[in-house]
Amino acid sequence: MTHPRKTPVLVDCDTGIDDAMALLYLSAHDDVELVGVTTVFGNNTARQCAVNSLRVLELVGRTDVPVAVGAERPLVGEVTYLATHVHGSDGLGDAGLPLDVTARPVEETAVELIDRLSTEHAGELRILAIGPLTNLAHALEAIYGLTDRVHDVVIMGGAADAPGNQSPAAEANIIHDPEGAQTVISAAWETTLVPLDVTMREVLTDDHRTALDADGSPEAAFVSAATEFYFAAYGTESYGHRSSPCHDALAAGVLTGDVVPVTAPVIDVVVDCTDGPGRGATICDTRTRYRGFTDITGGNCRVVLETDGGFPEVLVAALTAGTPA
Amino acid sequence: MTHPRKTPVLVDCDTGIDDAMALLYLSAHDDVELVGVTTVFGNNTARQCAVNSLRVLELVGRTDVPVAVGAERPLVGEVTYLATHVHGSDGLGDAGLPLDVTARPVEETAVELIDRLSTEHAGELRILAIGPLTNLAHALEAIYGLTDRVHDVVIMGGAADAPGNQSPAAEANIIHDPEGAQTVISAAWETTLVPLDVTMREVLTDDHRTALDADGSPEAAFVSAATEFYFAAYGTESYGHRSSPCHDALAAGVLTGDVVPVTAPVIDVVVDCTDGPGRGATICDTRTRYRGFTDITGGNCRVVLETDGGFPEVLVAALTAGTPA
Repeated sequence: MTHPRKTPVLVDCDTGIDDAMALLYLSAHDDVELVGVTTVFGNNTARQCAVNSLRVLELVGRTDVPVAVGAERPLVGEVTYLATHVHGSDGLGDAGLPLDVTARPVEETAVELIDRLSTEHAGELRILAIGPLTNLAHALEAIYGLTDRVHDVVIMGGAADAPGNQSPAAEANIIHDPEGAQTVISAAWETTLVPLDVTMREVLTDDHRTALDADGSPEAAFVSAATEFYFAAYGTESYGHRSSPCHDALAAGVLTGDVVPVTAPVIDVVVDCTDGPGRGATICDTRTRYRGFTDITGGNCRVVLETDGGFPEVLVAALTAGTPA
Repeated sequence: MTHPRKTPVLVDCDTGIDDAMALLYLSAHDDVELVGVTTVFGNNTARQCAVNSLRVLELVGRTDVPVAVGAERPLVGEVTYLATHVHGSDGLGDAGLPLDVTARPVEETAVELIDRLSTEHAGELRILAIGPLTNLAHALEAIYGLTDRVHDVVIMGGAADAPGNQSPAAEANIIHDPEGAQTVISAAWETTLVPLDVTMREVLTDDHRTALDADGSPEAAFVSAATEFYFAAYGTESYGHRSSPCHDALAAGVLTGDVVPVTAPVIDVVVDCTDGPGRGATICDTRTRYRGFTDITGGNCRVVLETDGGFPEVLVAALTAGTPA
């Protein structure tokens, strides 16, 4: 099977466990050229997330990918917390990855790297945004014509007709910077939102860990160990049993097309930027749900509301054989 | 079958079509003593809703039930619209009910009637609140110890993990008076919320209309004709086919116990009282959904999230034979 042209993908992330899964999945994907990584505060500081990204990329020999440090704070206000409790003291599930790497982040800022890569791959660059959306909001402000240079943006974040996680209404990536998220979602480019509605439903279990353990590759071993950490963080509290989501990696699967959404209407989405109890909620107009999302006019964002549940197997296959099983 | 003691029920409503269904359903119920009706702006003015309530009660010979006019405006701000488009020019689906009745609303205000009935039936009175919650908010302010006198309050309103109707985030009863709703839900009495999550799923169809038409009673004929009007208002826009919800009547079914919810956890609910895009949303903490709502501590409201779908048949049976089929 030939791949005449790989798709250039930039990942904007706050590398914790599921960001790492997304980076490894994309690194292994035949159709993807991972051209750059920009990092943002969220699961950890932007600087630590850059180091974490390099630790992950080193695992698959890809420290040639430029990693740029981005925003350490949201557009409005200050950082209220970093999600270290979900991602371990080393930010990657205490799964045994070396704490330091030889490679260093590039000298460019995140915005500068976005500027350069969107010029080099004008019209073709796809962005996978799996952290708070601050870097992209800054880039939209700083870079004239950015929306024309970028093919589309796939975002892990928000909740449509599902509970939030960081608050009853809001998902963590969005509530970290609601104003940034509103800027990105309302900009004149194509956006796809992959919210908790679907990411909480595609779960890794012990069966997947067993498959990863049988492989023996360093990346499979790392994801297995990190998933074990996720089981402890998510299993009891969220599911009541040993399971974990693969949030950011699922969004990567939507980007590549390995995940073909069952339901993904283009609808109006607005982020709650008030200081009320709904701050950070992604208010998605799903009122056409009962008629199957037919006859919709307008709409500023494609929202993935249902997937087929098969992504954990795709992820495991990518991490073990490099190709889907 | 004996009914040693009927349950005293006060209905606080803004009588349009589905309020009328609820009143007729409760009037026909063996276990219920309908002791009073208080009305509020919403589907129409509070005064017109009182007249509409009397028109409905006359249909079943129950103009002995006291009907009191309540609030014509919310706690904060002004009335922005009345839902006459959903309920017809006569407020009851233009279904042929006489426009006037001999009976008149009582001289008492809604708050005075709530005061009197909650004294007469202290500790036993159940309230079915199926309009904006302004009257109950005023009553809580005006009547010392009201929460101790009332057994519980069952509310049709809000949306948990489902779209709103009046706005993407908010349901009509709640957005009419978010501050009133927040007052009622946070008060120290037992509340049950019956939101759009379930009311949009229990629908009347042509099969139900056929059964009503076959009965020949005036109340069955009225509900059939009003449902036909609802089909036009809801069918195409919401469902894409001839169907309609029975919102308020479903809440009445939850009150009587004819509807035994499949899922109805006691969880934290807060109403969005900001001026943002989520104004009027009922933010329900459903984050324990993935573990089956187990091990919840706290919680201020029972929220009905899933029912078994059988209520339309119960409603038709009540309107045709007076007893469930």
